[in-house]
Amino acid sequence: MAFNYCIACYLGPILENQLYNVSIFLRTLSERRKKMKANRIHNFNPGPAALPLAVLEEIQESFLNFSGSGMSIIEISHRSKPFDDVINDAVVRTKRLLHLDDNYHVLFLQGGASLQFAMIPMNFLSAGSSADYVDTGTWSSKAIQEAQIQGKSIKVVASSKDKNYAYIPRNIKFNEDAVFVHITSNNTIKGTAWADYPDTKGVPMVCDMSSDFMSKPVDAHKFGLIYAGAQKNVGPAGVCLVIIRNDMLDLVPDSVPTMLRYTTYAAKNSLYNTPPCFAVYTVDLVLKWLEDTVGGLDKMAALNRKKASLLYDFIDAGDFYRTTTEPDSRSLMNVTFRLPDEELEKQFVGQALENGLGGLKGHRSVGGCRASLYNAVSIEDVEALVDFMKTFEKENG
Amino acid sequence: MAFNYCIACYLGPILENQLYNVSIFLRTLSERRKKMKANRIHNFNPGPAALPLAVLEEIQESFLNFSGSGMSIIEISHRSKPFDDVINDAVVRTKRLLHLDDNYHVLFLQGGASLQFAMIPMNFLSAGSSADYVDTGTWSSKAIQEAQIQGKSIKVVASSKDKNYAYIPRNIKFNEDAVFVHITSNNTIKGTAWADYPDTKGVPMVCDMSSDFMSKPVDAHKFGLIYAGAQKNVGPAGVCLVIIRNDMLDLVPDSVPTMLRYTTYAAKNSLYNTPPCFAVYTVDLVLKWLEDTVGGLDKMAALNRKKASLLYDFIDAGDFYRTTTEPDSRSLMNVTFRLPDEELEKQFVGQALENGLGGLKGHRSVGGCRASLYNAVSIEDVEALVDFMKTFEKENG
Repeated sequence: MAFNYCIACYLGPILENQLYNVSIFLRTLSERRKKMKANRIHNFNPGPAALPLAVLEEIQESFLNFSGSGMSIIEISHRSKPFDDVINDAVVRTKRLLHLDDNYHVLFLQGGASLQFAMIPMNFLSAGSSADYVDTGTWSSKAIQEAQIQGKSIKVVASSKDKNYAYIPRNIKFNEDAVFVHITSNNTIKGTAWADYPDTKGVPMVCDMSSDFMSKPVDAHKFGLIYAGAQKNVGPAGVCLVIIRNDMLDLVPDSVPTMLRYTTYAAKNSLYNTPPCFAVYTVDLVLKWLEDTVGGLDKMAALNRKKASLLYDFIDAGDFYRTTTEPDSRSLMNVTFRLPDEELEKQFVGQALENGLGGLKGHRSVGGCRASLYNAVSIEDVEALVDFMKTFEKENG
Repeated sequence: MAFNYCIACYLGPILENQLYNVSIFLRTLSERRKKMKANRIHNFNPGPAALPLAVLEEIQESFLNFSGSGMSIIEISHRSKPFDDVINDAVVRTKRLLHLDDNYHVLFLQGGASLQFAMIPMNFLSAGSSADYVDTGTWSSKAIQEAQIQGKSIKVVASSKDKNYAYIPRNIKFNEDAVFVHITSNNTIKGTAWADYPDTKGVPMVCDMSSDFMSKPVDAHKFGLIYAGAQKNVGPAGVCLVIIRNDMLDLVPDSVPTMLRYTTYAAKNSLYNTPPCFAVYTVDLVLKWLEDTVGGLDKMAALNRKKASLLYDFIDAGDFYRTTTEPDSRSLMNVTFRLPDEELEKQFVGQALENGLGGLKGHRSVGGCRASLYNAVSIEDVEALVDFMKTFEKENG
């Protein structure tokens, strides 16, 4: 061996040793990152819910310095150029995705859909005027209640309460002189949805779309107002999107407090006071993902139909699991189902979580199980769920 | 040379080459990270404002997988154990920092302090009862306006409008039968603050503390209600903390819509509907920083006094810059100042930003300059500002 005579022989082991240390360090970094990703569960939460991983990664990446501002997105002024760009982009994307013309305003409010239940009658119903409401479950019922608390005149023109809200009422007779007709497009808790919107003979619809907003194309022109808490399909909790038609703004009286008037938000591009900047920013990123990565609402709808079919078809094919809703009223977003007994349901939810499938417990007010298949839930997530359901059935059926 | 005969001689250059690549890669990573930090500016924004870097880093680090849940903090259920831990921790820390007993509830609402302007008279003033308001600037005036819009009976018992709100009124005569006295503890836009709270002879104070909340110890027992938009000292925009005493809850009528009643939030630990989870989580981390890193409100107050003195003493020592407020009414949070003319003020703000000092423009309604020195602004930030002010004066004075 020529070891003693060669300088490269001295360098070799040193370099090798260093390289080894470095490679270990790199592997640790990369493994940690992979592990973090790998440890993410299949998230079937009803809301707050799964969001696209690419969106989360973009938020994370730029969290200490947003858009070259030298500040976090949560430290920048809501009256700065970078934030103006964010909120304007979110408005433009919403309008483009829903094919809205300038007859509509896109607003960002706080307080969730629950505050809208109160604001809608407060803004649109004056003495002597009345509105029609359709009761399709928990959230519709709350909307009705908030109008009644204020002593507003409303008529519940249809309800599916007789069958524990397992279906969507048909052939409803609306009142021609109603100021608006209020419906809930998708019933998160009961697992039903309107397959087609009713014909209200020209009376503007006001619609709580919280749990299927941006999940499929919508002919927005039928609606005087659409509202949606973001925390299902389009963002985090803490912001509620409101899409309002100009003629509805004309109904708003000055006697309503400033922060509870839709006109305030429409006049100031949602910047009368400090908006929930981080939530608006996240919504903008999700809408960007919806346009640029998914390819728009037609493609999103096709994916959502595929996901829901996968699960409903599996449930329908056997006897172990059963849905709680009538087939023509089924939600594509929230699949509610039962197992043979409550003890099995409890085991099912627990074992699912152990297997990396989260959020499958039904709402505390109805029990059972529920898988929420919002936009960011992938086909692979649903396949993993069906695989687990097969295994669970085999072991417990 | 023994080069041809030694296997280590072959390995050496290969290893060396690989090590070089790896080292370049590592250096790039590390530089990028350092650059990101280095590119962060001195942030004197009035709100949303600077937050502790350690808090931002913790959010970033755990953003894809919060607390082992396999989900982001913005994807987890507000009814899950991990989020319960967050909101309960935020309540406990708030109570501990302010020495609150169980006679007080700590609530998290949406809509900012601006919605509180409307909720306060809505919840506490019935027909035949009246409240006293002190007008110390823009936000006080808005609070007054929102009571008047609702046709509530209120009395403006003092105002500093006569001197463009440059001072805090003294020796106010309050009405003994007032349900509450409303004050604004710190006037973000005008740059004034109450050095001592007034003696209201037992009438509960209701106080907008948005811009000096948690900046110093407060004898909270004087207050029936304290409210604070988080986006100054304790978090991002999108959540408003409300601290309410039990006896105030007894005043709330059932005719107020559910989401606008303080009783709703007090009864459900702010979880009647989905709260702004991310904002509550960030507030919790900031409160943790305030307790564990800063060491509590006494230490925070000492730091804040030191920061404000540094800037006021420098301004007072010369003729180039001048404050806009009376010395005994000065805010420690928002230092408002003018330069000899508006053209110079514009140059000052622009050049400051070029030098990494942001957010120094005065509010659009008053002009001039303003440096907001909230909790997360460090002594070093203020020193950098004073250094820049010296240089600017030398070049333009």
